Amino acid sequence: MYKFKNDYNRVCHKNILNRLNLEYENNYVGYGNDIICESAKDKIKKLLQKDVDIHFLVGGTQTNKIIISSILKPYEGVISVKSGHIATHETGAIESSGHKVLELKGIDGKIDVLKLDEYLKEYHIQTNKEHIVKPGMVYLSNPTELGTIYKKEELNKIHKVCKKYRIPLFLDGARLAYLFDARENDIDFKDLNDLVDIYYIGGTKCGAMFGEAVVFNNKKYSVNFRHNIKQGGGLLAKGFILGLQFDELFSNNLYFKLGEHANKMSNYFEQELKKLKVKMYVDRYSNQIFPVFDINLVEKLSEFCDFEKWCFLDDNKVCIRFVISWATNKEDIDDFLKQLKSIICK
Amino acid sequence: MYKFKNDYNRVCHKNILNRLNLEYENNYVGYGNDIICESAKDKIKKLLQKDVDIHFLVGGTQTNKIIISSILKPYEGVISVKSGHIATHETGAIESSGHKVLELKGIDGKIDVLKLDEYLKEYHIQTNKEHIVKPGMVYLSNPTELGTIYKKEELNKIHKVCKKYRIPLFLDGARLAYLFDARENDIDFKDLNDLVDIYYIGGTKCGAMFGEAVVFNNKKYSVNFRHNIKQGGGLLAKGFILGLQFDELFSNNLYFKLGEHANKMSNYFEQELKKLKVKMYVDRYSNQIFPVFDINLVEKLSEFCDFEKWCFLDDNKVCIRFVISWATNKEDIDDFLKQLKSIICK
Amino acid sequence: MYKFKNDYNRVCHKNILNRLNLEYENNYVGYGNDIICESAKDKIKKLLQKDVDIHFLVGGTQTNKIIISSILKPYEGVISVKSGHIATHETGAIESSGHKVLELKGIDGKIDVLKLDEYLKEYHIQTNKEHIVKPGMVYLSNPTELGTIYKKEELNKIHKVCKKYRIPLFLDGARLAYLFDARENDIDFKDLNDLVDIYYIGGTKCGAMFGEAVVFNNKKYSVNFRHNIKQGGGLLAKGFILGLQFDELFSNNLYFKLGEHANKMSNYFEQELKKLKVKMYVDRYSNQIFPVFDINLVEKLSEFCDFEKWCFLDDNKVCIRFVISWATNKEDIDDFLKQLKSIICK
Amino acid sequence: MYKFKNDYNRVCHKNILNRLNLEYENNYVGYGNDIICESAKDKIKKLLQKDVDIHFLVGGTQTNKIIISSILKPYEGVISVKSGHIATHETGAIESSGHKVLELKGIDGKIDVLKLDEYLKEYHIQTNKEHIVKPGMVYLSNPTELGTIYKKEELNKIHKVCKKYRIPLFLDGARLAYLFDARENDIDFKDLNDLVDIYYIGGTKCGAMFGEAVVFNNKKYSVNFRHNIKQGGGLLAKGFILGLQFDELFSNNLYFKLGEHANKMSNYFEQELKKLKVKMYVDRYSNQIFPVFDINLVEKLSEFCDFEKWCFLDDNKVCIRFVISWATNKEDIDDFLKQLKSIICK
Repeated sequence: MYKFKNDYNRVCHKNILNRLNLEYENNYVGYGNDIICESAKDKIKKLLQKDVDIHFLVGGTQTNKIIISSILKPYEGVISVKSGHIATHETGAIESSGHKVLELKGIDGKIDVLKLDEYLKEYHIQTNKEHIVKPGMVYLSNPTELGTIYKKEELNKIHKVCKKYRIPLFLDGARLAYLFDARENDIDFKDLNDLVDIYYIGGTKCGAMFGEAVVFNNKKYSVNFRHNIKQGGGLLAKGFILGLQFDELFSNNLYFKLGEHANKMSNYFEQELKKLKVKMYVDRYSNQIFPVFDINLVEKLSEFCDFEKWCFLDDNKVCIRFVISWATNKEDIDDFLKQLKSIICK
Repeated sequence: MYKFKNDYNRVCHKNILNRLNLEYENNYVGYGNDIICESAKDKIKKLLQKDVDIHFLVGGTQTNKIIISSILKPYEGVISVKSGHIATHETGAIESSGHKVLELKGIDGKIDVLKLDEYLKEYHIQTNKEHIVKPGMVYLSNPTELGTIYKKEELNKIHKVCKKYRIPLFLDGARLAYLFDARENDIDFKDLNDLVDIYYIGGTKCGAMFGEAVVFNNKKYSVNFRHNIKQGGGLLAKGFILGLQFDELFSNNLYFKLGEHANKMSNYFEQELKKLKVKMYVDRYSNQIFPVFDINLVEKLSEFCDFEKWCFLDDNKVCIRFVISWATNKEDIDDFLKQLKSIICK
Repeated sequence: MYKFKNDYNRVCHKNILNRLNLEYENNYVGYGNDIICESAKDKIKKLLQKDVDIHFLVGGTQTNKIIISSILKPYEGVISVKSGHIATHETGAIESSGHKVLELKGIDGKIDVLKLDEYLKEYHIQTNKEHIVKPGMVYLSNPTELGTIYKKEELNKIHKVCKKYRIPLFLDGARLAYLFDARENDIDFKDLNDLVDIYYIGGTKCGAMFGEAVVFNNKKYSVNFRHNIKQGGGLLAKGFILGLQFDELFSNNLYFKLGEHANKMSNYFEQELKKLKVKMYVDRYSNQIFPVFDINLVEKLSEFCDFEKWCFLDDNKVCIRFVISWATNKEDIDDFLKQLKSIICK
Repeated sequence: MYKFKNDYNRVCHKNILNRLNLEYENNYVGYGNDIICESAKDKIKKLLQKDVDIHFLVGGTQTNKIIISSILKPYEGVISVKSGHIATHETGAIESSGHKVLELKGIDGKIDVLKLDEYLKEYHIQTNKEHIVKPGMVYLSNPTELGTIYKKEELNKIHKVCKKYRIPLFLDGARLAYLFDARENDIDFKDLNDLVDIYYIGGTKCGAMFGEAVVFNNKKYSVNFRHNIKQGGGLLAKGFILGLQFDELFSNNLYFKLGEHANKMSNYFEQELKKLKVKMYVDRYSNQIFPVFDINLVEKLSEFCDFEKWCFLDDNKVCIRFVISWATNKEDIDDFLKQLKSIICK
């Protein structure tokens, strides 16, 4: 029933489950100081070919909140598009840590680099800066909330603006697995070494039970970061369970294969929908599809399928969201399409 | 190596692992709105024979911080003994949410009800209350950080004082499984309905991979509590993994059996140590033992066993902590004792 | 030089200065528990003909921050227009207390009641409310940042919407003195009893050295408010100096006379500017005028007069702000106009 | 009636009042960017013979909160004696900004340098630092809450310990005027250049209407400090009123003369009390006297004099506090003594 509702509706990938079974008899030291966490970090660093600083946290909101509040000074805020996760769906977690989310109008869920530059420029020509929140960081997600993606050149430009104003660029990679094989993507995992200052490799939505791997490209941003994690309630006692998940995800390219599978499936799904003349709210790039249906049809679909109603449009049209994941079967898509066709053709 | 270091050194109880394997193919709705969470809550409510309000969170610090900050008004603080977890080992998590921990001197890790009454009385006779932090809640853990326990009459008295000053009593049950079969314990699970206002049933240290089940005996304290969980970074996307752990722990009395096992093992361990004339720092009640050794002996022990050095005493003596858990084997204890004897008798 | 820059460029009205001189030899109890504060409160209550709860604070940002953070629950935010003082010019003071400012697009600095109703309605039909900041209060200022005013019917409608969604309406009256004699105003001081739930009577910008008098129409919002003031760093040791200022402002209708004078002067100033064909950015209602000039002219004016450059428009035009206050002389206006004419007519 | 209750019971010194009268017709730019503030800062710097960074704030709690929260990292706390103002009488203002006050047992209101060193040493040998609040600053006041004083050598030693652990030393000088002529004091105003890292020169309790002048000996601690002041609600719109008060206090050595007067008066008061065989709770050093009386006598005294009851002792004895200020007359002391004698001799 919940098959297209989101990408966190299944326990986890079977490799992780197998590893859990395998580790059952062993005992490990707590709080992520264990050898499995070391192994997982080593695998990621090897892939990146860089000695980055890595920390494992539990979930996305927690990760965003702890990173942002650990880096910003009390009078600084974080820039995000209005549709950014931290601006809309985290119950004011960033503000509860004392910082304003400075909202910019985006384009298809993405930061407009010209608007960003203009915003920062305007701040810096102010004469009464002490009355205004200082922009202290730029936040973006890739893929975005709308499944769109930033290309290498776009991120490069944004990063250049950040450097110009000496603020870090932070990439929320909750769905990072779905980036690398996304339509039109030209970013390679290793490119993240230079494109941003801090990012995280999403686990929860990409095959793990839970977990996000935070990567600091620049260690000046992670001084005493474990203090911040603990204070923020994010230091898992059994840290080795976080470690083993990433250890599996980064063995045999599993992480990338999971993304590849989802993008292939969502591409197929989208193509089939288009054959049925279904309109799309935004172009599909990664594992999310935003088709537009009549409200009556949506009600019928919801009888046998669970999905998000994304937004209401004019003329009784509704944009809904289908999320395809590492775990989605072609059979489930075909089954859904069959039922959809039978309704449409009635 | 980490066998006596703590009670969170193993993945989880095998029933939970089996359940994970069993649920592998299924998909569930997110954020704890699933039927497994419902089932787990129903089992707990049935045992308590009360329609309490239950929420599943990930870890102890997170749970303490979210509960306390959701209930206190901005100018209120929480009373705890100096050795309380929130006062010592949470990196100021409570303060980071804006509230002072009002520290009372305890006795063997426990609140002295007379001191508590006196403290609250003194506050209430102040004439300039607006200059002082208002005590807004009492926090205690049972078993305590030192493995000691509160008996029914003690909790009753403390609760009576709380009621007199109209503040809630919150019990941190991170090690609750180890209470019910602790030496001298006279508290039954159902007694918690009346003894405190809010408490949590610890999972992380009692057989789960992670998770704490918060129970509100009085629903006035849990209005919109899910908002607080989300804002605090504690709302797990795959909430059904929290649910299935408690669903297993509360099937066939597993939770209580795990505690029973640990207490039996720790009793045996303590008795054997006493036969070797080992002195104890505090009396043992539950799954923690605090033996005192010469510093030289401690160094030798640490070569083949990992444990916490609790505190340094006079005369080159050290108090160390052994934690026995749901997963501890008699063989491991015997093996350790054999090595200990061989060192002592040399 | 700073004569039109703002309404806080002079020490204070001479009646306040005289009172300070008069009180020089006397001694009073601290923290606002003195008889002058009582007298000032009584005068205000008498004018309002209502037994409201009154507290004196030092400045506007402090007052906004302490009121809002004392009323909102941790997961609640405050609604304001984008141009609201709390949204723009308080360095994120509200966010630093943990709460999001929920920004609505305004009209001439004012809340659009239809947009407000729609926003609150949309929130309340959400099914996943725990992921979203709960709107917990509406903030507005009257007169607004743009000198515009809400009429009685407008405030009534907004208040009705607030009541429908059971959230309080808070009016920032930093420039309240300039409301009552503003162009088109139909609100009487006593009307504030019913039009809003909390408001403050601005002193700093209305003739005092400093000080804002917070009025709670509903005492449920001010329980233990003095605790919040103290914690927020707003409880002045010599509270009687706050009291004596409001005692003077509310003797012989001084507060209202000061506003009347400023509005008369600004009306005159505006009329004279219009005779010179100067365009206005927004209509003038109270003590602020927003004329539009060529950038070259602005540079020349700034040689002999200090003012805020409000915003840059197209075609090398700039909107500047003149603030007329309780202390502005007709001579200073005439003198400025003379110099302006001589430049224009060159 | 309130003559010995505290040192903030009178409007202000007459020089300040005269200056207010003098400035009545003038207008100044806002927020402390005016020439009077410049003048006041210059006078202080000239006396210190050092180019320190100076900021004017309104009151003590506000100043403590803004300084401490602007310097500490989120996971850091501030060390203070248990009787420190921030630990007892600020309604948890420091905690409300997110930071724990790390309380050390003091001696007569003063930090014990050995205890401090031991505390910091113990922290730094911890292996699990991420679980503990990091001590990030040392706070003390001079004179202390008990009127006792630190001598130069004592402060030197404390500062040395702070430097060893690389944390700043912050001195709350709310009663600084009363230090320099205190009994046994050997600290000169200029000595503050080296003895501490941050301090403030108290105005509120030392002759001003209100105001504290924060001095940063090391400018690395005051980067963007005005942002913190504004966000904390401490940036006074009419900053020139703060400036003119310090401009007067630091003209003709007024600040030091006021302290000298108060100490002379309190010395006289104490000597006369001792002649009447009155016992003291602590030795008097500056402008506070803590005599011990029978409770019956205290009740009689309170009929014609207002003072703080400091603490209740055994045998129906009470320690009360007399505060002598810049404004205390010998006549008032004599008058009180006469009444006291007539009661005692009855």
